[in-house]
Amino acid sequence: MKKLINAPADVVAEGLVGLERAHGDRLRVDHAHRLVLRAHAPRPGKVGLVSGGGSGHEPLHSGFVGRGMLDAACCGEVFTSPVPDQVLAATAAVDGGAGVLHIVKNYTGDVMNFEMAAELVAAETGVRVEAVVTDDDVAVQDSTWTAGRRGVGVTVLLEKIAGAAAEEGRDLDAVLAVARRVNERGRSMGVALTSCTVPQAGRPTFDLGEDEMEVGIGIHGEPGRHRVPLAPAREVAAMLVEPILADRDATGEPAIVLLNGMGGTPLLELYLMYGEVAALLERAGVRVARSLVGNYITSLEMAGCSLTVLGADDDMLGLWDAPVDTPALRWGA
Amino acid sequence: MKKLINAPADVVAEGLVGLERAHGDRLRVDHAHRLVLRAHAPRPGKVGLVSGGGSGHEPLHSGFVGRGMLDAACCGEVFTSPVPDQVLAATAAVDGGAGVLHIVKNYTGDVMNFEMAAELVAAETGVRVEAVVTDDDVAVQDSTWTAGRRGVGVTVLLEKIAGAAAEEGRDLDAVLAVARRVNERGRSMGVALTSCTVPQAGRPTFDLGEDEMEVGIGIHGEPGRHRVPLAPAREVAAMLVEPILADRDATGEPAIVLLNGMGGTPLLELYLMYGEVAALLERAGVRVARSLVGNYITSLEMAGCSLTVLGADDDMLGLWDAPVDTPALRWGA
Repeated sequence: MKKLINAPADVVAEGLVGLERAHGDRLRVDHAHRLVLRAHAPRPGKVGLVSGGGSGHEPLHSGFVGRGMLDAACCGEVFTSPVPDQVLAATAAVDGGAGVLHIVKNYTGDVMNFEMAAELVAAETGVRVEAVVTDDDVAVQDSTWTAGRRGVGVTVLLEKIAGAAAEEGRDLDAVLAVARRVNERGRSMGVALTSCTVPQAGRPTFDLGEDEMEVGIGIHGEPGRHRVPLAPAREVAAMLVEPILADRDATGEPAIVLLNGMGGTPLLELYLMYGEVAALLERAGVRVARSLVGNYITSLEMAGCSLTVLGADDDMLGLWDAPVDTPALRWGA
Repeated sequence: MKKLINAPADVVAEGLVGLERAHGDRLRVDHAHRLVLRAHAPRPGKVGLVSGGGSGHEPLHSGFVGRGMLDAACCGEVFTSPVPDQVLAATAAVDGGAGVLHIVKNYTGDVMNFEMAAELVAAETGVRVEAVVTDDDVAVQDSTWTAGRRGVGVTVLLEKIAGAAAEEGRDLDAVLAVARRVNERGRSMGVALTSCTVPQAGRPTFDLGEDEMEVGIGIHGEPGRHRVPLAPAREVAAMLVEPILADRDATGEPAIVLLNGMGGTPLLELYLMYGEVAALLERAGVRVARSLVGNYITSLEMAGCSLTVLGADDDMLGLWDAPVDTPALRWGA
């Protein structure tokens, strides 16, 4: 295992030290609870947005805390759900009197712990909490740590769009509604060329032959649809685009497209893949209205990529374009 | 070799197709010359900024084209200098009547080809051209493809700062002066945990044992100062900070600090490393005024990182903070 770390057990805590040092002008870290929060207290009347999950997917979620996006991120151990106490503390910290939305990726541990936290919040604080659970991965129906589909790339788009809705002052029902609409209309599919190595495990999560790739990979290395021989980028693009389009109702609407790197694939390859994907989408009648190419929901140093296609209405496009000021997404601000 | 590509010979051309599809609203690509240009014609009276070099270091340079930064990037083959004709075409395309600054990393081929291009520009167009050559890498005095020090991370900071100076209307002499000041006051040092693989070579550029790292690595895998056993992050941080501080005249001034990923290292590790580096800098009396953490000047999928410390005066800090709108750096716009 070759990593720029100290003791494997300290990776998450020490990563947060660095994040705080780099972005202390706009973020603060609650080290006891492993929360990343905006530096300034919540604006009264603004719906609070809390997300979180296992670490190792950076910039998701900690890199998306800031104006126009999340109010707090709860950081679990690498590939391990945050505990209910973290989510409780985050929810209490960001409540501005208008309620709090929990954004949860569909993994059994995450869903359970966010639900337990919501019960604790109700019992201890009276803050109104709603939740949206993302399940956009078309690869498989159930998975290693998931009943139903896994939540992946659409989470990034949802955090941006719901974050903008909250920032412009919409109430909790309205923010929840647009968040659910994003999840319903977003679809994703991923591919891995290599495994990743969890620091505390010390060896690759799975084995993949020198000439193999895993199509439909999960963000923790969960098995996908099939293991196939390494193929040219344009064939890989088809393996991502076709299952997504086969799963969607409409293809003519404008789309927000995320071509996401898993962490270890160079940007040159991600842009090359985006070119292949965009050409296929265009041929299928999908009008790409907005795009995002880069490492946004990663699996440590895994080589590979995922594609997310979100059929977006004008409201979503407007919210996408709204200013955002976070470590990993920043524009108009 | 596991890469998301088609034919190895087409990687650069096809990467540009994807870049254009993703950012066609603000960039255009001259595919014949392999140039990335701003979508809109140069503003009369603005100094033009042209950079370029071998591909494989993305987002450098193509991801830094846009308002407040470069006017054009010349994309060579992977780890191969662009040819003079590319630089000539870029220079002619971006001239707004106020002259053009060439930003060149100190590699023999790059320096030679930019110089030849400047001669062609003088002979064919009469556009005034000046050049700044970056040589910030303290690791070694001469290197595989370099006489003198190599140009690395300071190039990112220089393109931002000189780009802002040009955008606010400074003349060529003034833009050149601030660019040279940035290079003179910036120092860098890198470390690699793994090699990278050039697509057309098909195998790793160098061999590194499972328990080894290369301290002082170049961005094309050129040898550094020494090969040492893998060490904890806080020791690696000292191996980067100490040679930089030993090479600088003053340490009390405010600094802009770039903790850069080589391409294959997860963001979690980069932030962890930044925490270690920032603590050492603080202890040495360096006041970190601005920081940037992420993959900005990469070596394909190499695992590792580099540190750049720039002693910045108020003018540089103001130019750093000015709005920028490029694929890879975007704020205030």
